[in-house]
Amino acid sequence: MSAVTDTFRNGVDTEKMFATLDLIKAQPELARFQFRATNRWIDGAHNRSAIKDFYAAGGEDESRGEAFRLDAGEPAILLGSDTGPNPAEYLLHALAACLTTSIVYVAAARKVRLTSVESTVTGDMDVRGALGVSDEPRNGFERIGVAFRLTGDAPPEKLREVVERAKARSAVYDMVTNGVPVAVEVTTA
Amino acid sequence: MSAVTDTFRNGVDTEKMFATLDLIKAQPELARFQFRATNRWIDGAHNRSAIKDFYAAGGEDESRGEAFRLDAGEPAILLGSDTGPNPAEYLLHALAACLTTSIVYVAAARKVRLTSVESTVTGDMDVRGALGVSDEPRNGFERIGVAFRLTGDAPPEKLREVVERAKARSAVYDMVTNGVPVAVEVTTA
Repeated sequence: MSAVTDTFRNGVDTEKMFATLDLIKAQPELARFQFRATNRWIDGAHNRSAIKDFYAAGGEDESRGEAFRLDAGEPAILLGSDTGPNPAEYLLHALAACLTTSIVYVAAARKVRLTSVESTVTGDMDVRGALGVSDEPRNGFERIGVAFRLTGDAPPEKLREVVERAKARSAVYDMVTNGVPVAVEVTTA
Repeated sequence: MSAVTDTFRNGVDTEKMFATLDLIKAQPELARFQFRATNRWIDGAHNRSAIKDFYAAGGEDESRGEAFRLDAGEPAILLGSDTGPNPAEYLLHALAACLTTSIVYVAAARKVRLTSVESTVTGDMDVRGALGVSDEPRNGFERIGVAFRLTGDAPPEKLREVVERAKARSAVYDMVTNGVPVAVEVTTA
């Protein structure tokens, strides 16, 4: 029983985690992943993504029995009927979720047991950009603020180090702060 | 009846849309919006965001009766138990959803009736970055590809122009391609 207790920390199987890291160090080609979403317009601001298969560690990962389905929308003030969070809100969620998971994994690796991780994420936007009314404000958020509240069995400095390391490794934090090249293709038929 | 038909195009109330644009042109201070998400860690890679209130057009918008709840997770190969799409997949969905809504709104404004808008979004990642195994690959996607398939009552060139204009105005496309300053604060207590 104590072996099981020692292996799992913050809900993460640390034995499996270190084995995964060793495997990827030995065979870097296994680190090639591709994630995907397919999206379909429904009506107005309502569209829906399906997320299921992905490429990982040398082959297609088909472990998911069913696709996750995500509905997007806009509130009435942005001409929608509130069929789901709007796309910019989904981006805030992606950022909070990625930083949180990174914090949890880093803490597990560093033998820190967390008791709570909560965050509030805000994004400020001048919608004249996205609505095409003015070229001056950018289309997206001018800035994003993330406020984390952490508790765990480590001193404050250690918890802050965990957050710093998570920022340095989070996939979505990297993308949102640094940007990613996006290629858009269009087929009309 | 024909007045109603003329006002709604692609599920968008174009009369309300043009009135909104006129109002924001006349009173640019109404264009200040703030969107928000609050996130709470549950266990391992499982965390959940709540998305509800936001600031818009000079005040708090409380039109949403209940919060949207979004569960994030990781698949087994990334040490989770598949409690939801992973954060990077949420970012792909945010991008697809924003470009799609932008296409639908731009088409409505330009009198193009769409019959379908579908997209496949892919993101390529070397997970050695995010897993902290190597400093060479970046943490996030190296590149994102978006493939749109559109049909509507306009010639192919016109549909392509709609997509180009949507790219030029999409909030999430701007953020993902250009990046956003992100400030992270930490409270440990």
